[in-house]
Amino acid sequence: MPAPLAPDSTTDVLIIGAGPAGLMAATQLSHLPVRVRIIDKRSTKIFTGQADGLQCRTLEIFESLGFADRVWKEANHMVEFSMWNPDPATGRLRRDDRVPDTPVGISRWHESVLHQGRIERFFLDNMAKYGREVQGKEVVVERGVLPLSMELEHGEVEDKDAYPVKVVVRHLSEDEASPEQSKSGQGVSDGLFRSNLAPDDTDELVKKTSGMEGREETIRAKYVIGCDGAHSWTRKQLGFKLEGEPTDYIWGVLDIVPVTDFPDIRNRCSVHSESSGSLMVIPRENSLVRLYVQLHEIKPDAESGRADRSKINPDLILKSAQKVLAPYKLEYKHCHWWTAYQIGQRVGTNFSQSERIFLAGDAVHTHSPKAGQGMNVSMQDTYNLAWKIGHVVQGKAPRSILKTYQSERRRIAKDLIDFDHKFSRLFSGRPAKDAADEAGVDMEEFKRVFKQGALFASGLSVDYGKSMLVAKEGSAKEQGDGTDVESAAAKAVSKQSLCKNAPLGMRFPSHQVLNQSGARPWPFQMWLKSDGRYRVILFAGNVKQAEQKKRVEAWCAEADKSDSWLKKYTPSNATIDSVIEILTIHSAPRKEVELLDDFPAILHPLRPNDMGWDYNKVFVDDESYHEGHGHAYQGYGVDPSRGCVVAVRPDGYTGFIGELEDVEGLGNYFAGCLLPVNKAANES
Amino acid sequence: MPAPLAPDSTTDVLIIGAGPAGLMAATQLSHLPVRVRIIDKRSTKIFTGQADGLQCRTLEIFESLGFADRVWKEANHMVEFSMWNPDPATGRLRRDDRVPDTPVGISRWHESVLHQGRIERFFLDNMAKYGREVQGKEVVVERGVLPLSMELEHGEVEDKDAYPVKVVVRHLSEDEASPEQSKSGQGVSDGLFRSNLAPDDTDELVKKTSGMEGREETIRAKYVIGCDGAHSWTRKQLGFKLEGEPTDYIWGVLDIVPVTDFPDIRNRCSVHSESSGSLMVIPRENSLVRLYVQLHEIKPDAESGRADRSKINPDLILKSAQKVLAPYKLEYKHCHWWTAYQIGQRVGTNFSQSERIFLAGDAVHTHSPKAGQGMNVSMQDTYNLAWKIGHVVQGKAPRSILKTYQSERRRIAKDLIDFDHKFSRLFSGRPAKDAADEAGVDMEEFKRVFKQGALFASGLSVDYGKSMLVAKEGSAKEQGDGTDVESAAAKAVSKQSLCKNAPLGMRFPSHQVLNQSGARPWPFQMWLKSDGRYRVILFAGNVKQAEQKKRVEAWCAEADKSDSWLKKYTPSNATIDSVIEILTIHSAPRKEVELLDDFPAILHPLRPNDMGWDYNKVFVDDESYHEGHGHAYQGYGVDPSRGCVVAVRPDGYTGFIGELEDVEGLGNYFAGCLLPVNKAANES
Repeated sequence: MPAPLAPDSTTDVLIIGAGPAGLMAATQLSHLPVRVRIIDKRSTKIFTGQADGLQCRTLEIFESLGFADRVWKEANHMVEFSMWNPDPATGRLRRDDRVPDTPVGISRWHESVLHQGRIERFFLDNMAKYGREVQGKEVVVERGVLPLSMELEHGEVEDKDAYPVKVVVRHLSEDEASPEQSKSGQGVSDGLFRSNLAPDDTDELVKKTSGMEGREETIRAKYVIGCDGAHSWTRKQLGFKLEGEPTDYIWGVLDIVPVTDFPDIRNRCSVHSESSGSLMVIPRENSLVRLYVQLHEIKPDAESGRADRSKINPDLILKSAQKVLAPYKLEYKHCHWWTAYQIGQRVGTNFSQSERIFLAGDAVHTHSPKAGQGMNVSMQDTYNLAWKIGHVVQGKAPRSILKTYQSERRRIAKDLIDFDHKFSRLFSGRPAKDAADEAGVDMEEFKRVFKQGALFASGLSVDYGKSMLVAKEGSAKEQGDGTDVESAAAKAVSKQSLCKNAPLGMRFPSHQVLNQSGARPWPFQMWLKSDGRYRVILFAGNVKQAEQKKRVEAWCAEADKSDSWLKKYTPSNATIDSVIEILTIHSAPRKEVELLDDFPAILHPLRPNDMGWDYNKVFVDDESYHEGHGHAYQGYGVDPSRGCVVAVRPDGYTGFIGELEDVEGLGNYFAGCLLPVNKAANES
Repeated sequence: MPAPLAPDSTTDVLIIGAGPAGLMAATQLSHLPVRVRIIDKRSTKIFTGQADGLQCRTLEIFESLGFADRVWKEANHMVEFSMWNPDPATGRLRRDDRVPDTPVGISRWHESVLHQGRIERFFLDNMAKYGREVQGKEVVVERGVLPLSMELEHGEVEDKDAYPVKVVVRHLSEDEASPEQSKSGQGVSDGLFRSNLAPDDTDELVKKTSGMEGREETIRAKYVIGCDGAHSWTRKQLGFKLEGEPTDYIWGVLDIVPVTDFPDIRNRCSVHSESSGSLMVIPRENSLVRLYVQLHEIKPDAESGRADRSKINPDLILKSAQKVLAPYKLEYKHCHWWTAYQIGQRVGTNFSQSERIFLAGDAVHTHSPKAGQGMNVSMQDTYNLAWKIGHVVQGKAPRSILKTYQSERRRIAKDLIDFDHKFSRLFSGRPAKDAADEAGVDMEEFKRVFKQGALFASGLSVDYGKSMLVAKEGSAKEQGDGTDVESAAAKAVSKQSLCKNAPLGMRFPSHQVLNQSGARPWPFQMWLKSDGRYRVILFAGNVKQAEQKKRVEAWCAEADKSDSWLKKYTPSNATIDSVIEILTIHSAPRKEVELLDDFPAILHPLRPNDMGWDYNKVFVDDESYHEGHGHAYQGYGVDPSRGCVVAVRPDGYTGFIGELEDVEGLGNYFAGCLLPVNKAANES
């Protein structure tokens, strides 16, 4: 028996759906902290299968939350991509080319593979831990909770104290919440019930469990995020549609321990057979290999456009794979999971209702899984959104920043759909026999697209347009999605040339720097934690030069003024680094300067409660004892004598770049994205 | 009420004391697996203070067990060592020199600091996990268990089926097992009750809890390891003594969050004041700093040789530290732990009774903590011992290998005592005023000793002498401890010149290699897991050259024979790599060879249960995509065209080096340390 429920309750943020997108949102909010609840209609988390590819940017984000190391240790690192095609002369399958799977030099991380269940486990552990440490209460997923209805009180949308979204939910018993497949308990896990070949079961569950009393709850939320997948219940309540059409291509997926003489079974491979279709090999953790296999035998119904999933089974997928891989042999005894899907690319027109109810992940964009993008882009949706909602709830930011969610992420979704469209067709097509074979796919073109696509797929080419959060040149309307507000930030003009290799709107890259005090080398990105703070990176240049030292001192004196760009946004009872943290990277030789003598106190402030100086804010670009020289100034493209100032958003994207003297520019930037503190109210 | 106890029970190994030495033993045994129990008289683990320094070799061992990453993430990495001395001209304290704390290039790891409580946590998690996975039952510490008596049945010592050690224990209630200090619960943790200034409380506990019925248990063990510290109850039962004397130097220890203007508070420092004594700074995790401070005010009693611990408190230690650090200021508000100790170096004459009852760690050697050696050497004692006991219990090895525990570890203990003796005196002395000041310590000599000592302190200079486990030149009696048996291994003559940089008797070093199949770069050491297996590393050379390929094929054919050095020791119902694992590193270009075509099956055997080929046994010394070239052949000092064969012990030390053709030498080596399988018995 479930415990008796409060008939009516409130929360700042309600997340519907505890897949990767929902978990990312809940985790990020638990770090800020913001009061959050996350519900899922299923009774258990995922244990096998589903998405598995983790891209560079995703791993960087995991690091900023504190668990990239767990992934990196358990995952299979996917290092090489091999392309297998028919030999034009003999038609026999052969390895045509091999290239690094992740472009070299773009990140400390590269593509890795680990099943979604483990990734969800790391999220669950992390959000519980941060909930405990930051807000004194573990954040946990409430499972077996079914949403019944949702209403938005339109008149309250702009009222910052209101809870304008009312969601009625039903708490299910464990039995009710288990889908048939996962209840069977025996044999191989089959993911078809979650595939796009299966209908959604929410309505069915609602019907089945109606009439049971005393188990409904009304949740009033300030914000709702629908992370409930391709069949999104939340999207249906809003009446929003996805645009796009399914294709005729049906693919099967097998997670197996292969027994094979195919030489590249431990590499990521594309295999195009002469006339039996294609497959992709994804080597995974614990000897598992995932095969994506084109299913020629299964065709969508001409009228409905949908394929009959009852005809698909592991044996069918295996037989198709065997034909593609011939003359190599493939068998297996152990199959951990399998599913099938119909390729199609669709994207939502609206990502939110009144910036109170948001859609993220598969709920607003769907595509084929082979580029390893779905889970990554979905998590990055809510990583983009959660801190913005958090800032608004905390009263730090104006509601207008919420418009940047759609303007920033819808463009990414469309880029992804375009990429996937191109990639899927090249992948599913038959190799061209010769230059005249226009119906076939030119293998050279396939290689070109793959290589270009690898940077896109890494997640590191994301480039947010001009907005109140990105002070770059041009028009917010053109670069964004037409939803941006023009704001004070428009007045902040960055000078990209001062930090050439950290493009505005892209994630601030990482180079090795040393701690001034303890000499420890750090990838600088490790200090850009996802704790909701903006960061101002003071490239202090060579502070051994008297003139430069004066510039740094002048900059610090400005920051120290009572109405500065820093103090204006910092509550007087909070620590000076609680909203915006200043991190310094200087270029003088480490052994020729001293933290306390050469850097004003605001760069290494005394910590409250008699904790002494903060020794973790000043870094240097110098040779380390054990790990070489990071050449960070060179890497970032900053003049080592004069330096510059960079503002980085809470999600790690570059927002503003200026000279040390451009205090006004920095001020304008923050005026666009933060609300000044009412000091009087704060002190009362 | 405790559950009713079996009056009589058996275990293969009983470990007395759950500090780092005991936990290392239990953890290693849980990996093998061997039935083990570990008891401790205290009711709880340590939460603050105690030992904290982790040396390179210790981190390598942690990695081989699977938890170095947890330490590395949480620990403070100690990068720089600064030496502060009085300026000869003015007498004012100044930074005289700074050097890397760990010598450059000796390991991927370097000295790190994390309090013992966390390290114990990682052991507890690891042994529970491996217990669960390898033997189906978590291995946990039984706390509040007090040993009452121990008897060895001498007549059964050589009987492999006997349980010749009888230990009677009493299970205490939680209240009985808590020392007074830890029960107080309030204020600062004080470690004096565990210090060498305090008497042991085992006898007192025995007296206090006697007469309570029904809570005693008799444990019959094949082997007992006493890891019960400087006051070792186990040692007392055996009547063994430690040799050596305490000095007059008394030191205090403070774990604080310092508030100070001393510039190097985040570096490891030695500080010698002109006339107020010396101190050492150890920067730690979470803003903590440990200070070791010489206490001039406290002198040992002339008669007893013992200092009065009642006079020592944190304020006294702080005041001494302030005098040493003047003119810099030092205050603190947060003190997490403190203790004091009297410097002295003592070592046991006997490390075991009849190779059935062993002593390890502080139970057989004590010294001052400042070199950060105590916990490290103690853990390495049991790391050396546990797999040997495990092999004997499992019937894999003759009992005679147990003699190598004392021959290998007593010499290390003596070296440590000598190092500490020299280092402590240099550290505690007053700096010499000039060359004529013979009573003072020459600061140049101090620096020399520190720099020489750093390699010793890393744990990587450990060099085990010739024995049945190390087929090196010379006499086992001279190089060891006079306890070695002469054995078949004496006939195995290694050729050090074939693998110049992996000295016999020292730990096999690590260089980056790539997986042949998946191209992933690995520090090779990551494949030398502490799972009780010997490893034969086949440096296969350039297998693209026909002649070399033939040599490799011939070597494999020898290994594949039914009475080979490999199969002789492998039960017929076990996998081919279960006792000795062959790992290959070749030097041909990775892209010019194929795993299945160019390497005989025995180098990548088919795994049982239809799991396909083993893709994790063949590596290559080649350029990686993302992490450079490991130059492993050059690093190991192996001829890249001809290669060689190296046998590595289960604890990672180099045991044998020979040509591919020296199958007899390899056979002799294993004949010395393994027992042939009785195939008939095994199959029955």
